[in-house]
Amino acid sequence: MKGGNGDTSYAKNSLVQKKVISLTKPIIEEAITNLYCNKFPTSLCIADLGCSSGPNTLFAVLEVVTTVDRVGKKMGRQLPEIQVFLNDLPGNDFNTIFKSLPRFQKDLEKRMGAGAESCFINGVPGSFYGRLFPSKSLHFIHSSYSLQWLSQVPQGLESNKGNIYMASSSPPCVLKVYYEQFRTDFSMFLRCRSEELLEGGSMVLTFLGRRSEDPSSKECCYIWELLAVALNDMVAEGLIEEEKMDSFNIPQYTPSPAEVKCEVEKEGSFTISKLEVSEVNWNAYHGEFCPSDAHKDGSISFNTIHIPIAN
Amino acid sequence: MKGGNGDTSYAKNSLVQKKVISLTKPIIEEAITNLYCNKFPTSLCIADLGCSSGPNTLFAVLEVVTTVDRVGKKMGRQLPEIQVFLNDLPGNDFNTIFKSLPRFQKDLEKRMGAGAESCFINGVPGSFYGRLFPSKSLHFIHSSYSLQWLSQVPQGLESNKGNIYMASSSPPCVLKVYYEQFRTDFSMFLRCRSEELLEGGSMVLTFLGRRSEDPSSKECCYIWELLAVALNDMVAEGLIEEEKMDSFNIPQYTPSPAEVKCEVEKEGSFTISKLEVSEVNWNAYHGEFCPSDAHKDGSISFNTIHIPIAN
Repeated sequence: MKGGNGDTSYAKNSLVQKKVISLTKPIIEEAITNLYCNKFPTSLCIADLGCSSGPNTLFAVLEVVTTVDRVGKKMGRQLPEIQVFLNDLPGNDFNTIFKSLPRFQKDLEKRMGAGAESCFINGVPGSFYGRLFPSKSLHFIHSSYSLQWLSQVPQGLESNKGNIYMASSSPPCVLKVYYEQFRTDFSMFLRCRSEELLEGGSMVLTFLGRRSEDPSSKECCYIWELLAVALNDMVAEGLIEEEKMDSFNIPQYTPSPAEVKCEVEKEGSFTISKLEVSEVNWNAYHGEFCPSDAHKDGSISFNTIHIPIAN
Repeated sequence: MKGGNGDTSYAKNSLVQKKVISLTKPIIEEAITNLYCNKFPTSLCIADLGCSSGPNTLFAVLEVVTTVDRVGKKMGRQLPEIQVFLNDLPGNDFNTIFKSLPRFQKDLEKRMGAGAESCFINGVPGSFYGRLFPSKSLHFIHSSYSLQWLSQVPQGLESNKGNIYMASSSPPCVLKVYYEQFRTDFSMFLRCRSEELLEGGSMVLTFLGRRSEDPSSKECCYIWELLAVALNDMVAEGLIEEEKMDSFNIPQYTPSPAEVKCEVEKEGSFTISKLEVSEVNWNAYHGEFCPSDAHKDGSISFNTIHIPIAN
């Protein structure tokens, strides 16, 4: 992911991801309400896993923190101190996030008034496919648009020549190793989080997924197939070595709702309270989000899976 | 402070600061031992305030964490999970720190063996002259070579022409406003930390200070007087505008032990268990630290004040 604020940075090219965060507002509100209904602490620890670097990073925090404030006021509760942990890989551009904190504090004050100064932001570098926090230290975990990324490119993709991801022309063993990597990674994620979450804590996870049970269906692979066509053309023109193209594969997996449910149940620490699939249109880039436009105008839509999940 | 790892970066020019951290080892050990003697938690929260960016950042953490491990083993206690909070201003180069974490984890494993994976590192951007953490959330606070920096250049230095800091030629009002800024800042620091520390928690603070009660004494002002001579020469040669030189002042104050004691007692939340003054020689750059060399060879020595402090 490209850091900084330049034209090609992630910060300037992540409007779809912002739409996805907006979609989850009611789900986050429900999860926070449940927290208030349980024994509510005077200090609340919240983590955003795979926070990236750009306006979405603090937009997500703003949504979660103002939800805590709004729900608390509605229920006549005093606002807790909030410790927010922003996590991403150590190579993430945390400097850019931290430099934008003074503006974030102003936005928070505008929305919340007094109490905004009781929100403390931290950066947590590391992979969420491992432990990031002490045991029983978090009340709420949020992750948006990150869990589709695997911990690594799966081993055993030598036969996926000409493709850079699962494709309709990929041999069955390719689909199998991608699925196995997802299962290993997602169950590790669940195991780590189950140790870090306090009793009564919850997670809202949103990530790219698919409705179809076919892992090489067009709904999730189309974008990479398009890119593979371009790359193969570049190989034919001698711009890219064939060997490099053959060894390049995307470390992503977009699971179906059934696959997600299966892993959560198998790991056993969490209960899914809702599993929704929504379609997000890449046209979000050019105007307001409009679900009905999906697949029109050559645009690409994503299925995102939202899981509020409690331990 | 210059980020990155280049020749002129702080990371490559901070050997004196490393010597200062080494000097405090026995004091840190005593503070950690006291923590173990109180009700010891299964998860320990430690903050390093003014962590900077460079090898010293993680060197200080390594010292503190391995002390927790060593003292714990000596006392037959199980190693707690440790959450470390590295704080500095939002403009600090946290990216460089975070990228060096994999190597730090290896160093920690070498020193500690099993248990190193239970150390979780966080970055906390913000001024330590304000709140950084939720109430009663920290067990131990460490700060080395940072608290001599004021929150701002004091107001009312118009008459300090030709100088860039307190100097023997500075009018009394200059010394007064510098001292007032120190008092305001240091008491704010103490107030904030007293809210953030848990009962039984403690701090070890080390910063530049002076033995003399004269705030413009050579022991702390010499380095800035030397720099002022060079800058005044550049003004005379027309390389720097006189107006810029007149308006430039260093936001630093190096208090005497009596001044520190006075502020701690006035603020009232803490008890000083020891207040030591040590001399550190800038020759540290060119070989091993040797206190007896102080003031020889045109070298400059610093007085550092160590305060283990408990609330």
